[in-house]
Amino acid sequence: MTKPNIHYADLKDSYLFFGIAQKVKKYSEEHPNEKILRLGIGDVSLPLAETVIAALTQGVKDQAEKSSFHGYMPECGAPFLRATIAEFYRKRGVDISDDEVFVSSGASDELGDILDLFDKENSALVIEPAYPAYVDANVIAGRKIIRFAASYDNGFTPLPDESAAADIIYICSPNNPTGAVFTKEKLKKWVDFANAHGSVILFDAAYEAFIEDDDIPHSIFEIDGAKTCAIEICSLSKTAGFTGTRLGYTVIPKSLSRAGMNFNAMWVRNRTTKTNGVSYIIQKGGAAVFTDQGQKEIKENIAYYKENAKILMQVLDECNIKYTGGKNAPYIWLKCPNGLDSWAFFDLLLERIQVVGTPGEGFGKVGEGFFRFSTFGSREDTVEAAKKLKLLFSKGE
Amino acid sequence: MTKPNIHYADLKDSYLFFGIAQKVKKYSEEHPNEKILRLGIGDVSLPLAETVIAALTQGVKDQAEKSSFHGYMPECGAPFLRATIAEFYRKRGVDISDDEVFVSSGASDELGDILDLFDKENSALVIEPAYPAYVDANVIAGRKIIRFAASYDNGFTPLPDESAAADIIYICSPNNPTGAVFTKEKLKKWVDFANAHGSVILFDAAYEAFIEDDDIPHSIFEIDGAKTCAIEICSLSKTAGFTGTRLGYTVIPKSLSRAGMNFNAMWVRNRTTKTNGVSYIIQKGGAAVFTDQGQKEIKENIAYYKENAKILMQVLDECNIKYTGGKNAPYIWLKCPNGLDSWAFFDLLLERIQVVGTPGEGFGKVGEGFFRFSTFGSREDTVEAAKKLKLLFSKGE
Repeated sequence: MTKPNIHYADLKDSYLFFGIAQKVKKYSEEHPNEKILRLGIGDVSLPLAETVIAALTQGVKDQAEKSSFHGYMPECGAPFLRATIAEFYRKRGVDISDDEVFVSSGASDELGDILDLFDKENSALVIEPAYPAYVDANVIAGRKIIRFAASYDNGFTPLPDESAAADIIYICSPNNPTGAVFTKEKLKKWVDFANAHGSVILFDAAYEAFIEDDDIPHSIFEIDGAKTCAIEICSLSKTAGFTGTRLGYTVIPKSLSRAGMNFNAMWVRNRTTKTNGVSYIIQKGGAAVFTDQGQKEIKENIAYYKENAKILMQVLDECNIKYTGGKNAPYIWLKCPNGLDSWAFFDLLLERIQVVGTPGEGFGKVGEGFFRFSTFGSREDTVEAAKKLKLLFSKGE
Repeated sequence: MTKPNIHYADLKDSYLFFGIAQKVKKYSEEHPNEKILRLGIGDVSLPLAETVIAALTQGVKDQAEKSSFHGYMPECGAPFLRATIAEFYRKRGVDISDDEVFVSSGASDELGDILDLFDKENSALVIEPAYPAYVDANVIAGRKIIRFAASYDNGFTPLPDESAAADIIYICSPNNPTGAVFTKEKLKKWVDFANAHGSVILFDAAYEAFIEDDDIPHSIFEIDGAKTCAIEICSLSKTAGFTGTRLGYTVIPKSLSRAGMNFNAMWVRNRTTKTNGVSYIIQKGGAAVFTDQGQKEIKENIAYYKENAKILMQVLDECNIKYTGGKNAPYIWLKCPNGLDSWAFFDLLLERIQVVGTPGEGFGKVGEGFFRFSTFGSREDTVEAAKKLKLLFSKGE
């Protein structure tokens, strides 16, 4: 008799964003004339950059002719894209070789898949509040989760202590949901800690393109010692608007080994077994992101979202509401006013001003009492939401 | 200290197709002027159909404009594509609802991912010779593999006996590598066996579009009782030349449960945790495959490959070489002449006539002494390979 993976029963009933979608859907059905202002799920609103569209179009054309047609792609990524990404790192002073770069369908997919490298008995440290899939993917695998609390007082970038000793350590900087960023000094403490304990850091760098300050690391591999303890998972979703186009990349240094097993070699073996690679068309589009023109265009889009952030931060400042993020990150993490819990604040915003955000509680219990705004919405929605928020807050609600 | 997944150490050194690629690369480097005739890896050679190209082009255009831009796709698949595929099943008389269809990045990806639904202690039955990833993906998960031998004498479509009692049962029909097809009667025996033992069948239908005979099932759900014991994994790779474009789909009936857990609901939970869906552009292209014009065009491509099969079968018939497949399947599985073992035959073909095929041993020990030709090559290569094969065989080699 087949035994299903019983760990699914340990998952909370509904995945956060799915749950929010259901609530919004219900509200919309009951109030068909109300316009919903979406500052919730971190989905982008600007279309793909021109240079990327041109490359995707060429990719499609290539698939139409026998002479340029691409069948199976190399499982670990197209050589042209692996080389482009490695070069992108090297330009920033991080020495990564082409075969340390793996192309993926996106960070969320990769964060699930990569756990295949680890023993089921490993423990996973999640610095909460955190992207819920870190916990859920490990729950599905039956792993022990160690929750490590970030707080407003430590700027949501805590330093390790012995209670953080775990086999797998998740670090996300710039952080989802708090928008907080780890400085080089703070990240160095985690790298040293991981090396000392033989842990592996899964570094989620999905939001690195939003960093403004020169001294904030874009890659964990800017930190000495990271190549013996870290895997970096990146995405074009937020960097270049690929949320619905799907492309990411992962860096696994060749010097990362545990118990005599090399993680880079294991991942090659995993990919050659469990995938036939990422769509040629999409990889072609992705490579365009790293050209000079591509970089110029995506930075214009990022600047647009940063302007959204400024509009929202201004309201929060005016209303004396505490928050982190918004500067080096596309998220703003605020303290719910009047001691409201985060789902009550969610309901209030949805029902009173039709603004959808994300309840902090969905990112872990320590997120209770906090709330996340995404700055990826349209300018119009953001401006309108800011106005409505100001009115609501100024009523003392 | 992080413990890596030690099961990687149980994997054979090199994945079959990767190993072949290395051998061919070495030969090519040593003989730069020799043209290699590739009848090895099952990669298609014809470009995508016109209708598919038009839809992909439209998909790219949609991503260029704010009004038509698509961000995150629903994790289980775009509603338009799920509906199209379910309708495709219903037209064939198989009653599947939209939410029993899951869109994937392809069958190879899905065959790896889907194992997440099963307990680590489950045993997996692999009817060998078989696609090597069935075994390898379960080895990575640490599962017990039960090997069940198919043979020339049972037409490579064996019936279950008590030694086949396993928790997970892989069935691939039309079969890779043997090209054999399970009749409805034979498949019914496996469905009854799985229901009686509480097993779950993973039915790999990647080659269903090559079926010519009316009485051969395209879907396991044509068989009574399959909805309580089977998951069907499909791909557009061979159906529509998507090997490098990447799209597949999986059917998980809502009536499939074990130990009180429902596999359809579990898979929804898995997808919402571990992926952000498949590229909008690619799903748009995939939907075009199922239109009347799309079906007409892909059938023309399939007819081209079937003509390749006829050319190769004719040579084998003339040379009195035993084989299966080639009719309802894109693969031809032949007995190596003169009692050669399959890697020796591989080397002989590569070195003497520059034809690359796939050694049967790579599909399991029972594949020793057999050899696979793919019919997905170009007409020119197939014709030339057929000529060279005939010359070689007629020399008695």
